[in-house]
Amino acid sequence: MMQREYVQDLSKLVGQEITLRGWLYGKRSSGKIQFLILRDGTGHCQCVVMKNAVDAATYAACDELSQESAFAVTGKVQATDKAPGGYELFVSSIELGAKAAEYPITPKEHGVEYLMEHRHLWLRSSRPWATMRIRDTLIVAIRNFFHERDFLCFDSPILTPNAAEGTSTLFETKYFEEGMAYLSQSGQLYGEAGAMAFGKVYVFGPTFRAERSKTKRHLNEFWMVEPEVAFMDLEGGMQLAEEFVHYIVGRVLEERQSELAILDDGSGRLVERCQRVMKPFERMHYDEAAKILYKYWDDKLASGEELPPTFKRFEYGDDFGAYDEVALTSLYDAPVIVHHYPASVKAFYMKRDPNEPDKALAMDVLFPEFGEIIGGSQREDNLDELLKRIEEHQLPKAAFEWYLDLRRYGSVPHAGFGLGLERLVMWVCDLDHIREAIPFPRTLTRIWP
Amino acid sequence: MMQREYVQDLSKLVGQEITLRGWLYGKRSSGKIQFLILRDGTGHCQCVVMKNAVDAATYAACDELSQESAFAVTGKVQATDKAPGGYELFVSSIELGAKAAEYPITPKEHGVEYLMEHRHLWLRSSRPWATMRIRDTLIVAIRNFFHERDFLCFDSPILTPNAAEGTSTLFETKYFEEGMAYLSQSGQLYGEAGAMAFGKVYVFGPTFRAERSKTKRHLNEFWMVEPEVAFMDLEGGMQLAEEFVHYIVGRVLEERQSELAILDDGSGRLVERCQRVMKPFERMHYDEAAKILYKYWDDKLASGEELPPTFKRFEYGDDFGAYDEVALTSLYDAPVIVHHYPASVKAFYMKRDPNEPDKALAMDVLFPEFGEIIGGSQREDNLDELLKRIEEHQLPKAAFEWYLDLRRYGSVPHAGFGLGLERLVMWVCDLDHIREAIPFPRTLTRIWP
Repeated sequence: MMQREYVQDLSKLVGQEITLRGWLYGKRSSGKIQFLILRDGTGHCQCVVMKNAVDAATYAACDELSQESAFAVTGKVQATDKAPGGYELFVSSIELGAKAAEYPITPKEHGVEYLMEHRHLWLRSSRPWATMRIRDTLIVAIRNFFHERDFLCFDSPILTPNAAEGTSTLFETKYFEEGMAYLSQSGQLYGEAGAMAFGKVYVFGPTFRAERSKTKRHLNEFWMVEPEVAFMDLEGGMQLAEEFVHYIVGRVLEERQSELAILDDGSGRLVERCQRVMKPFERMHYDEAAKILYKYWDDKLASGEELPPTFKRFEYGDDFGAYDEVALTSLYDAPVIVHHYPASVKAFYMKRDPNEPDKALAMDVLFPEFGEIIGGSQREDNLDELLKRIEEHQLPKAAFEWYLDLRRYGSVPHAGFGLGLERLVMWVCDLDHIREAIPFPRTLTRIWP
Repeated sequence: MMQREYVQDLSKLVGQEITLRGWLYGKRSSGKIQFLILRDGTGHCQCVVMKNAVDAATYAACDELSQESAFAVTGKVQATDKAPGGYELFVSSIELGAKAAEYPITPKEHGVEYLMEHRHLWLRSSRPWATMRIRDTLIVAIRNFFHERDFLCFDSPILTPNAAEGTSTLFETKYFEEGMAYLSQSGQLYGEAGAMAFGKVYVFGPTFRAERSKTKRHLNEFWMVEPEVAFMDLEGGMQLAEEFVHYIVGRVLEERQSELAILDDGSGRLVERCQRVMKPFERMHYDEAAKILYKYWDDKLASGEELPPTFKRFEYGDDFGAYDEVALTSLYDAPVIVHHYPASVKAFYMKRDPNEPDKALAMDVLFPEFGEIIGGSQREDNLDELLKRIEEHQLPKAAFEWYLDLRRYGSVPHAGFGLGLERLVMWVCDLDHIREAIPFPRTLTRIWP
């Protein structure tokens, strides 16, 4: 049907007469020339309409085109330095499609709430467009990374039977005669069952948290990828996480430099930031990180620098706060992996280090100017230890019977981690708010469109 | 950590001394030889332990191994005709891991309900294992197909604001002060917004139907892939669907013949069935299909063949029933595409054919011995027509305001389709029940584990 080419393929079509189909992104005229910017979803193309090169009807058609009106345009592809992207179309004819009524999003400034209310249209604008293309690259890279390493894609259920850790942050729904079901917050426990059956798996799907939070890092629905590997320990998990981050950020650098340029206005800042991620990551024990933080905040306070009112000073034994994570990574030119966190601040399923029983075999990957991107651990593989943890955390044992079975029948050392897709998109694209990292965000006050 | 190789790589390791880590799948002994079958998630390997080739402790270790106990085994890889897979390990030493208590799944027959209750363990058995590996191949193939054709992965929201078509088949959950939210039944409408912004997109995620159905084809939670393309018509959609099915079934044939052999006991039946899918699909107008069906059932009734009690004879204007779909495809050696269904049996958003206003520009891909695998259509792109449909279907217009915007601002012809992943897995693997096509199925009576 409807023979056409795409803007992204223009470099291969130089000198050919082709047809593009899309929408008017913008236009300007200069005497006897009209410049139409067509967007077709794969890119933007400047279409040059010269009055003396087309018939009167075609030239008049330009005037009919309002922002976001649909049209097809036929012409010859030319390489040029003058058009963004490096190619333009020298137009021979135009076919008008449906005209757009007064388009709600104009080049003038709109508030974010207004834009989010029109998210279904806002996605056509260049910044959301660039962001979603980078998101796509990250998704494809995540899946390729695991597939190339023989991980099996293992879809964990969204509807889960237990609210083991309390219902306060869970969305719940009635499930026929089976009682309530809860929307999954993580596929990890199921992923562990998968690792015992398939060796190496990754869960990658939407997850849900019903937290009444309004921070810029918070979505109530977001995508998470969670690899899980049998016969892997904490060290293996840290190696895998570093290799993984290198791979996926590397793909963005390979494929999406022009989208990054849209997002940083061509300053090159985002490319540079991604390049720094490609270096080996600094690794440190929690105790070492704690020492660094004590000194860091001592120096800050001594310098008389005013700290934000929400600042709370780190004390040994605490989990890190956002300020601590940003402080730590500010000292290096690349992400930092911190391992051996105090067991008391970590989840019940994390294994303790036999040599440091108050520490969990846990690790976080912290990103510069941001904080945690990945959290992971070696899992407790001893049945009795795990039972003790469940008791200590006052969790209902019955809810974990199937999970305990994984320790009863051929338990092996295993480890894994989780990465929140939107947090990474937010970092790579340097977004103000995580709601811009997903096509249709769900936040405390937004479930539309 | 823990240097090891995987069973799936044995062919590249012949003659080398390696270590495998995994679980005991089965064993037998014959005088002074023990045969241990190790599974490591990537395959099964026969490990040969000869009494005169190992020390006494190693030989004694074999007796300690119960079904699903963890162990590591070191030895030399040998090619052989005698072991399934074509390779075996000639053992030099064994390291015991955690012993499995009495494993609940033994080679004896268990009922499906019992096995589903132990789904977290049952996944280790060969049939579920083979099924999930084929599922993985299909998922990877689906994503590669679209990525290679420059489709953008576009994640539609799971939590949606409206129960436009009534709440009876929707799972609902309270959404803060915003009222109720409903779990998505389809990402298509959002996908259409995506197509207008990115040209070609695919939505691929979990979907939910709260139907109180107990059929073998019904899951309450399942994964669906839904491509949507701007400037594509019904003909383009049918071409895309055929190319798509060829591609993904082709990948199973390339990569998973040994898994198919596990599922059909080596008869070759499943490979043959998949090969028939690779032929061009028969295409027919609904009217032609109706004629064929009239004759088919006339002949059946005339032959005196007894029809099932649930059989209801097709009448012109009806949608096809399961019997009709199976009957139609039984006449060909490959899938059949039926198009131009009566508009009255199809969804409100489907465009009518201007030349046959009582017919929708809809199409279904029907599979032999099964029925519908894909359903799709060209979408109504005219604002007034769409408004008329919404009124006719007595749908609340307010809920569709954002969707209507897609027709207000640069509306273009567009089309797409949906494929239910588990239905395809069920067909490829010839499963008795669709619950075996997903790691942790959710049905009317099952939300555990």
